[in-house]
Amino acid sequence: MLVWLKGYRRSWLAGDLAAGAVVAMMMVPQGMAYALVAGLPPVAGIYASILPLLLYALFGTSSSQSVGPMAIISLMTASALAPLAAPGSSLYLTLAGQLALMSGAVLLACGLLRLGFLANFFSKPVMNGFTLGSSILIAWDQLGTLLGAELPHWHGPSAALGLGALALLVLARRHGAALLRRCGLAAGAADIGARLAPMLLVIGAIVVVWALDLDRIGVRVIGQVPAGLPHLNLAVSNAHWQQLLKPALLIGFMCFLLSMSGAQALAAKKGEKLLTNAELVGLGAANIGSFLSGAFPVTASLSRSAVNFSAGANSQLAGIVTALLLGAALVLPTGWLAPLPLPVLAATIIVAVLGMLETATLRTAWRYDRADALALLATAGGVLLLGVEAGVVAGLLLSLGTMIWRESRPHIAVLGRIAGTEHFRNVERYETETRSGVLLLRVDAGLFFGNVEAVNASVEEALALHPGTRDLVLVLSAVNAIDTSALFGLLDLNAELARRGLRLHLAEVKGPVMDRLKQSALPDKLSGKIFLSTANAWTALSYQDE
Amino acid sequence: MLVWLKGYRRSWLAGDLAAGAVVAMMMVPQGMAYALVAGLPPVAGIYASILPLLLYALFGTSSSQSVGPMAIISLMTASALAPLAAPGSSLYLTLAGQLALMSGAVLLACGLLRLGFLANFFSKPVMNGFTLGSSILIAWDQLGTLLGAELPHWHGPSAALGLGALALLVLARRHGAALLRRCGLAAGAADIGARLAPMLLVIGAIVVVWALDLDRIGVRVIGQVPAGLPHLNLAVSNAHWQQLLKPALLIGFMCFLLSMSGAQALAAKKGEKLLTNAELVGLGAANIGSFLSGAFPVTASLSRSAVNFSAGANSQLAGIVTALLLGAALVLPTGWLAPLPLPVLAATIIVAVLGMLETATLRTAWRYDRADALALLATAGGVLLLGVEAGVVAGLLLSLGTMIWRESRPHIAVLGRIAGTEHFRNVERYETETRSGVLLLRVDAGLFFGNVEAVNASVEEALALHPGTRDLVLVLSAVNAIDTSALFGLLDLNAELARRGLRLHLAEVKGPVMDRLKQSALPDKLSGKIFLSTANAWTALSYQDE
Repeated sequence: MLVWLKGYRRSWLAGDLAAGAVVAMMMVPQGMAYALVAGLPPVAGIYASILPLLLYALFGTSSSQSVGPMAIISLMTASALAPLAAPGSSLYLTLAGQLALMSGAVLLACGLLRLGFLANFFSKPVMNGFTLGSSILIAWDQLGTLLGAELPHWHGPSAALGLGALALLVLARRHGAALLRRCGLAAGAADIGARLAPMLLVIGAIVVVWALDLDRIGVRVIGQVPAGLPHLNLAVSNAHWQQLLKPALLIGFMCFLLSMSGAQALAAKKGEKLLTNAELVGLGAANIGSFLSGAFPVTASLSRSAVNFSAGANSQLAGIVTALLLGAALVLPTGWLAPLPLPVLAATIIVAVLGMLETATLRTAWRYDRADALALLATAGGVLLLGVEAGVVAGLLLSLGTMIWRESRPHIAVLGRIAGTEHFRNVERYETETRSGVLLLRVDAGLFFGNVEAVNASVEEALALHPGTRDLVLVLSAVNAIDTSALFGLLDLNAELARRGLRLHLAEVKGPVMDRLKQSALPDKLSGKIFLSTANAWTALSYQDE
Repeated sequence: MLVWLKGYRRSWLAGDLAAGAVVAMMMVPQGMAYALVAGLPPVAGIYASILPLLLYALFGTSSSQSVGPMAIISLMTASALAPLAAPGSSLYLTLAGQLALMSGAVLLACGLLRLGFLANFFSKPVMNGFTLGSSILIAWDQLGTLLGAELPHWHGPSAALGLGALALLVLARRHGAALLRRCGLAAGAADIGARLAPMLLVIGAIVVVWALDLDRIGVRVIGQVPAGLPHLNLAVSNAHWQQLLKPALLIGFMCFLLSMSGAQALAAKKGEKLLTNAELVGLGAANIGSFLSGAFPVTASLSRSAVNFSAGANSQLAGIVTALLLGAALVLPTGWLAPLPLPVLAATIIVAVLGMLETATLRTAWRYDRADALALLATAGGVLLLGVEAGVVAGLLLSLGTMIWRESRPHIAVLGRIAGTEHFRNVERYETETRSGVLLLRVDAGLFFGNVEAVNASVEEALALHPGTRDLVLVLSAVNAIDTSALFGLLDLNAELARRGLRLHLAEVKGPVMDRLKQSALPDKLSGKIFLSTANAWTALSYQDE
């Protein structure tokens, strides 16, 4: 807790203050927009950016992570609550907070149980596919708001505001930094300045709507934002714990993945070591804070953390500054926000999520490993066709599926001796000598449940091609582990070969693998011997031959 | 289709006829009992054992598999339908058939898409845990029927019949075969004879109930079994396709796993090669046949297939014989079955499922690999606490979880040269020489999304311990594959090391791995070189040193 405070240096202060202020200005439109994505009143997005940031600063470890509302997590929240309550109803508000509480509890529990390795369950292409599908889904959902009516209709003034905002934001993203640099700003400052375009646009849009009374002619605005800090919320619906369990698990999991994928990149840039389990605790505390504020699930967003980092954040103090500034904004009069037009918020959402898209991963995977590219596309398709929850499950199964599929077809080589040496190589690639009656097989994969059958089948195939075999030697130099399923597989193979009068030997068993095997019945039951090296096996078995 | 018929030998006929008859006699009580587990009328269990067997004989490949109702699949059926319809209602019957149709379609599609590798998703300990949990759940559910009343009450005469049957079945299972051998039967025949105990018991129980009019005093009986073959059923509920999708996927998956785990053992005994994808097609066809018969999902059960095998089945003709005999039994008068007491059927179920239990896997795993043992117990616990569907998902995640967890902590060794040789070994295990400025690291695991971060973290740790390093050589002799995520990981590592003025080299890249890497940007972007052998790297880098 507050580990960063002990090593705090005075020289960090300026950077932390600046970054905190920049992120606070970014957070106002972003928080309100993502609250709308989650189906909640805009002010909930600000509530989700005060206490959660303070709690993350207490428990988290990353100096640049910026916790708060995030588009994909808001989408998942809306998707989880849609079947349970009507958006805007008081039950909906309660359940959104409860979901943050439960996701937070899941994250906290995973952190305390040291389950950080769960972050390794998604492959990079699948994560990319998930982001791709979710971004398109979010952008599509905002089109109606952008144009001011249910598709395929549109409302002229709203559409003009929305599309105008969209155009300005795209221009700002593409050319904003260059423009500011030409105006004399340093490169870093220019990049950050361009990131504040949404906030400037929001202020501009408020002025336009207010001046032209556009809300009178049908432009939807966010309306009165209640002033004051959030009240302490402890409301839960006891009837819904079970129904919220699965979404809470999935949201907790994705909060963690989304946060880690950004944090790792930033930590590497700073040479920081990220404590995965501490990070889980920090995110868990932040989500529980969001529940207490009556808000909804939060996580660190890559884009916001990157701004925080570039703006000079040196410690979690930057987050505390952001939280204090946002708190102050709520304590001051909030009436000026009321004319903020929804089409402009929709435009900020669309530009933000489409900014998450990149095709480099897909292109690389397509050339490098087609299966990974297909997993990426299938995950994106799953999100679009089956929804975001099914998309997480599909992504999980596709990540693991591609791996199991790969691992379930291990490479197995028949070895021969390079004449006159103690080297043994693949007979298909080298000029080697073999000995009739002795078959040397090298298995190039760890043995585990996913390839037990494939290995046994390959062994049978090899035996069928070498009919006179009496001694089979499995060379385990590339076998880094043997799990319980594979142990049973070896015992079965040994028994089956013994039944047919063949002996099974092992050679070059690695130290850690051998340590485990000694705890099993295999060494006793093995019909043959365990040799230190292939050369030993070769000599010993030729001796028996004579 | 009918591949086995082409090679049929006359000498097989006797065995096939005998096995077919034995399995038919086993199937009568088993089919009716498992129909009850699934919440269906007993006759549905016989229906599920006619057309499905004929279709499996057409499309399946295993000569000993015995398809039909199976306890765990019946439990999954009941659990899937419980929230959708009342057992005994006409909707329930429709949905049970629809579930068989959908599971069958899933199996068929997986077979045609050659997705047989999906059988590799469950580890043996997790499968064992799943069977353990399901067996206990099934036995527990039958306790009320066994004792003739809702627990904790019991109905005297029913309980007497049920517990008596239980005692007789346990005795028959423990000592039946020995007794028959002492009566002069050969060992094989005695084993099979003992397996017919349930059928004999059923006949005895019918006589007792009929003679003593026990149904008048409250013993529940199965009642009138409709005579005649099943009518063609095509009924589906269009409102339920979506709700049945998840259960159908899970049931299809478990049908396949349960069937394969038995089939593989028997195929090995016969030296047969099991065609996984053909097996999927056979099981799919059988389930669609069960739908057409108005029954419920079916699979091959290990215990029944083992009896089929021991009784001499040489081909799928044995299954056809079983189907014909059961069809004949339905065409003949069926009134004699009516007094069959439910407590006795419950006893056959309890003995059958408890017979599936074995503790050898748990004991072996506990000694050999604690994580596998815990996964076994957690899966069993998941089934018992959360239900059988959640149990499948838990099993899947635990199988894959234990693997990812293991793989996410790869072993990485610092290598040194054994003086005067070209051999490089772990500096901690051998007397070696190292060269300042050059760090050789051997990674003992395939590189994939699950260990990208761990590998990069280990590299950083090793670098921190060897502060003067200018050249880092990754020795990839034990790396059998590098997936897209790991490719990005290597690119990141390369960029990060270059930023710090370190060069990254690779050595001993395996052929198939190198073929892939050539399709990527890595060879161009690599700050160092790719060496054929560690010795080459050692020589080249020492040359630069001078």
